[in-house]
Amino acid sequence: MAYIDLGLDETRNPGITGLLAYRPETARPIEALADALLVAPGSLPRGDRELIAAYVSARNDCTFCRNSHSAFAAAQLDAGMRLVEQVCADPDSAPISPKLRALLRIAAAVQRTGQAVTPELIDAARAEGATDVELHDTVLIAAAFCMFNRYVDGLDAPTPTDPASYRDRAQMVADHGYSASLPARG
Amino acid sequence: MAYIDLGLDETRNPGITGLLAYRPETARPIEALADALLVAPGSLPRGDRELIAAYVSARNDCTFCRNSHSAFAAAQLDAGMRLVEQVCADPDSAPISPKLRALLRIAAAVQRTGQAVTPELIDAARAEGATDVELHDTVLIAAAFCMFNRYVDGLDAPTPTDPASYRDRAQMVADHGYSASLPARG
Repeated sequence: MAYIDLGLDETRNPGITGLLAYRPETARPIEALADALLVAPGSLPRGDRELIAAYVSARNDCTFCRNSHSAFAAAQLDAGMRLVEQVCADPDSAPISPKLRALLRIAAAVQRTGQAVTPELIDAARAEGATDVELHDTVLIAAAFCMFNRYVDGLDAPTPTDPASYRDRAQMVADHGYSASLPARG
Repeated sequence: MAYIDLGLDETRNPGITGLLAYRPETARPIEALADALLVAPGSLPRGDRELIAAYVSARNDCTFCRNSHSAFAAAQLDAGMRLVEQVCADPDSAPISPKLRALLRIAAAVQRTGQAVTPELIDAARAEGATDVELHDTVLIAAAFCMFNRYVDGLDAPTPTDPASYRDRAQMVADHGYSASLPARG
């Protein structure tokens, strides 16, 4: 049970989905932000953006967000869940591009604190080909998951233990994005 | 200068405002979230919500957000800037209600990590009269400023040193909210 009475069946509305259903006024901009950051074109590949989300959630020990975005990343990456787990465990040794590795180092800094992002980290990512928009989106995705993770765990939202419950939603998010993929409310 | 080329006059678009102008796709949901959390009715008094924002920003050492939301809080609280500074320095000794003090303890926990929010902190706020919506909004405001603070500092957005530049925008935000209060772009 979450710390507040969400007024709904928590088993059908786990993690952030129950919180979004509870407070539609804040849910609408949160879902729109997730779509702009993780789904909209004009940025990094969607699988890479979900990897950043899963990696930051792992560093924040947020099990619901880590499991969710690991499933969403795996559904959109050829290398699937094995790569996601390698990245969450140790991006330095994971088989990813030098650019993505440099961006994950920036995301790790953001997870600690904004001040931990140094000119050297930015220059290293730029040297591997990262653009201004990719740098912007990496910082904002990492920062946004410092919000989402705290929102879910700070209200003790219920976290399913069955991996299938995360996989079931992954294809819907991959196909339709976040705003359209909330579970049935109630 | 920010870490990325914002393509605008940074002195006229300091802090988060330059980042929002740079990337309108993510700015729209961010501004809508700020309005839903800090301006819309049906929650804590607006001055108290801005106090939570200033307090979390101070704990994250984000000078731009701390100065901005301190000015916004002071513009909406009878006790003005002196109270804001007392709260940021030590909420336990500041002359505020027991309910607001209990909510600030929850905000401080969220600033560290979502897992730091305990049933005891929630029960203590409830005993002082906090409602479910107020508990929800306190957690989400604190979590959102863990995003905003990292966004601003992670991209090294320029931070004015003149207190007047924060006061000038405070009345506009108090009167018109966030979405309508961006500075002129360019």
